[in-house]
Formats: sequence, structure tokens, C-alpha cells
Amino acid sequence: MRKKPEIVATETVARTRLFHVEQLDLKFSNGVEVQYERLKSSSGGAVLVVPMLDDDTVMLIREYSAGVHRYELGLPKGRIEAGEDLLDAANRELMEEIGYGANQLEHLTAFTLAPAYLGHHTQVVLAQGLYMQSCEGDEPEELEVVPWSLSNLSELLIRDDMTEARSIAALYMVRDLLGNKT
Amino acid sequence: MRKKPEIVATETVARTRLFHVEQLDLKFSNGVEVQYERLKSSSGGAVLVVPMLDDDTVMLIREYSAGVHRYELGLPKGRIEAGEDLLDAANRELMEEIGYGANQLEHLTAFTLAPAYLGHHTQVVLAQGLYMQSCEGDEPEELEVVPWSLSNLSELLIRDDMTEARSIAALYMVRDLLGNKT
Repeated sequence: MRKKPEIVATETVARTRLFHVEQLDLKFSNGVEVQYERLKSSSGGAVLVVPMLDDDTVMLIREYSAGVHRYELGLPKGRIEAGEDLLDAANRELMEEIGYGANQLEHLTAFTLAPAYLGHHTQVVLAQGLYMQSCEGDEPEELEVVPWSLSNLSELLIRDDMTEARSIAALYMVRDLLGNKT
Repeated sequence: MRKKPEIVATETVARTRLFHVEQLDLKFSNGVEVQYERLKSSSGGAVLVVPMLDDDTVMLIREYSAGVHRYELGLPKGRIEAGEDLLDAANRELMEEIGYGANQLEHLTAFTLAPAYLGHHTQVVLAQGLYMQSCEGDEPEELEVVPWSLSNLSELLIRDDMTEARSIAALYMVRDLLGNKT
């Protein structure tokens, strides 16, 4: 295993309400020096929830996504608040976004997005034993909830509005996991 | 299908060498007005390549990832240069990063990363019919190439250094695709 590059210097080059850009001076173990930029993650990370109504039915949401200016299907997700337990965050996001709570919450893994440039981590949580329970969120409009059968995942993935890599990876993972259990 | 929110105004609030942060004033169809920030994608997008040495062996790379300051396993990837065909970009990245070219290149899908905040798209390309062919890249150190068996995907995914959602989603997708073909 290689020795990590040494971080020789860091400098904040931009900071907005949501984004914090840091410049890094790096020295690799072979002596090569480079300057990189990365986005620092400003929060305690995010949580992505796979809410299963039964062993085959996942609850997706359709939400306006400003980055690409279109409505996108995906899994419920949101920030973990300061000091909040990640499973509590998962359950809160579920109640806010799909109107269900979960009796069973299991942390599966953590995803990165583009680890060369972004410091962000997303915790993936499987939610089962759902019960109806709403909770007020901060969405500008009500989210549309779309149930989908995991045994029909291939048809979901050819849709133009189902593109988010984290949601896709988590759906495959849960399909494998629940398929293996039976 | 809902009407998209109207973009009432946009303003660049930060621009660095790599990142371009834009502020958006949006008006949803229900009349609610909100202000968002998003990262604009500055390039023609990125390409992520799934290089198959045979129907079961994928070629991964281990690369230093500044965003999380550690070495990460993942699929070869890079920017599509201005005017470059996406399959040509895929083949170039392969030669630069793993030392192979590919006789068969197939565009599978496009991923987004976090479509609420990021405008970036990643084109996923399956590469088969590999032949040895190197090409000088711009990496600060030589990349380590790690062959992995897709039939042993579950063992790969429990590793701490295999976290990138795009690579994970693409590996599942290709495992399904090649599994379905046989």
C-alpha cells in the first residue's frame, strides 16, 4: 500500500451558502508536487434510505432537482443534522419525504460521490417494517411517492429520469441482499 | 407530470479553477419561491469505463482521491475533452489509466451524482475486446491496476476503499448485463 501524498498547504478559495472550495498543495511519495481543488463537506454527511414496503416494493420519490433542472426519481435522502444519529436521520427523512416511519433500520454502507473532488459521504440505510407517519419537511412542494418493484429494476434503469448513481447502486445492493435472504 | 419550476434569475456566486457555483431564484408551479445553489458542470461531462478482460474480470484502478484524502478503488474515468466523441474519450482514458485499448465500446447509460446540487453527467461505457496499448496520461504517479472477478462483487463492496457510487452502480449493471447474455 502506497504512502498517501502529504498535504503541504490548504487554502479556502471560495465559500458560498452551500459550497466550500479548498485548494490543496500536495506532494506525492514520488516527489511530484501538484495543486488540487476539492469541495469540503460542510455537514455531518447525508443519508440515503431504501424504504421497502415489502420484500419487493421500494418507495421512490419524484423530486425537482435544480442541478439538472428536471424532475428526477430517486430514493429519499437528506442531511444528517448536527448531533443526530444516522438511523434517526433516516427515519426522519422517511417521514418527511414519503409519509412512513420504519420499525427496522439497518446501516448498509457509505458511498462517496466523486472522491477525487468531493469530500461528501452518503450513509445508506435499509428501512423495513414501514408504518404510516408523516412529519413536516422543508420541501417547496409535496413530493410524489412512486412504488416500484425491485424484480423489475431493469425497466426502472432505462428511464431518463432515473440517473442518480447513489440511488441506483443502493437499489442493486438491496435487491441482492433481500434476494439472498430468501 | 408536473410543470418544472421557473428559473426567475441566475447569478454566479463563485468561480474557481475547477468549480462554478450558481445561485438560482426559482418559482415552483404552486407559487412557492426559493433560492438554490448548484454547481455548474464546466466540461463536456465525464466518462466512466467498465473494462472487461473477459466476461468475468473487470480491471479496476487504485488512485489517490484528494476529496477524501485516501487511495480509492474504482473504475477508470476522466473528462470528455471539447469536441471529443465519448467512446474515443473512453478508449483514451483506458489507455492512459490501465494500459489497454478496447475493440468494442458500448455506451450503456448516463449517471448523475447528486442532481439536486450538481449539473454533472457521467457517461458509462462498457469496454470489451481489450488489447495492450498505453498512452501517457496526466496522473502525478502511476496508477495501480487491480483485476477483480465480477462473480465476487459482494466481497469487493465490503472494502473500505471501494465506495464510489458511480463505480458500484456500473459494476452491478454490467454484471447483470453479461450474466443475462450467457
